[in-house]
Amino acid sequence: MPGVGPKTAQRLALHLIKRPEKEVQALAQALIFAKQQVGLCKVCFHLSAEPICSICSNQNRDRTTICVVADSRDTIALEKTREYRGLYHVLGGVISPMDGIGPEQLNIEALVRRITKEQIEEVILAISPSVEGETTTLYINGLLRPFTKVTRIAFGLPMGGDLEYADEVTLARALEGRRELD
Amino acid sequence: MPGVGPKTAQRLALHLIKRPEKEVQALAQALIFAKQQVGLCKVCFHLSAEPICSICSNQNRDRTTICVVADSRDTIALEKTREYRGLYHVLGGVISPMDGIGPEQLNIEALVRRITKEQIEEVILAISPSVEGETTTLYINGLLRPFTKVTRIAFGLPMGGDLEYADEVTLARALEGRRELD
Repeated sequence: MPGVGPKTAQRLALHLIKRPEKEVQALAQALIFAKQQVGLCKVCFHLSAEPICSICSNQNRDRTTICVVADSRDTIALEKTREYRGLYHVLGGVISPMDGIGPEQLNIEALVRRITKEQIEEVILAISPSVEGETTTLYINGLLRPFTKVTRIAFGLPMGGDLEYADEVTLARALEGRRELD
Repeated sequence: MPGVGPKTAQRLALHLIKRPEKEVQALAQALIFAKQQVGLCKVCFHLSAEPICSICSNQNRDRTTICVVADSRDTIALEKTREYRGLYHVLGGVISPMDGIGPEQLNIEALVRRITKEQIEEVILAISPSVEGETTTLYINGLLRPFTKVTRIAFGLPMGGDLEYADEVTLARALEGRRELD
């Protein structure tokens, strides 16, 4: 499991053995319950206990904007900002030929279907800036450009970051992405 | 000295004592020479051994753009990107009333004089996004707005950064600063 090495694994195992049997059974059942209940939203592929997730079924959200992310974790991170009021679309990964992941392995076809069927005014690509992420961003931009406005999140200096400690590529992107002040 | 604690100081002192006297004298003279020779450029206030620094006197640079930074270190960081071909202006700090630093303590008057006297088409504010940095950015924007176009560097996800690990303010700024793809 991620973040659990041999030492932590041993500590967890010894801890569980010492607990009452009822507690251990409750944990085991919770694990099975979670696995059985949590699936993917049929619309946006975010983790959900219902067929349609709570974001997609929320009528108070801006239904004309879709934010495209690689993973459900990214949706959760963006929701925490409380800044974004639109919908999401989770790709389930990024294009990575080295790992045998092409566009067909991702939820891209379903995204194109959403764009062409619904009234979408803007698609925001919020994919981390790795080589695979850039490839995915450019690929999806090419696909969606004929149908709607496509934007991408800003890359630059992180908040609280000091110019002096930023790497050169980040600084170059921050300069390139400069905007006029109001 | 920054980054030198008691242990490092002792290690350096013991190292110097063991070296031949000639070497130690050379180091001492180099220190005095550096202190005597290095001053500030009369135009942009960057560190310089000449009255006018090598950037300001370089006729191949774009003389219509000035990048405003807080410190000479930031100029050095931006030069390393090899992306920027314009001139600089070093403020010598940021506005910080708590530390008794107001606009008069910074090289802001000289900046306004440069803008009004020379043919400057764009001023890029490249100041780190702290509370003091934001104050300084907004103050200078207010001053220069009547004379020229004022932009600021982009804030958002650093390169190689993962959406999931970005703090909420950075993510919110990355969303807010999104731009249309070509």
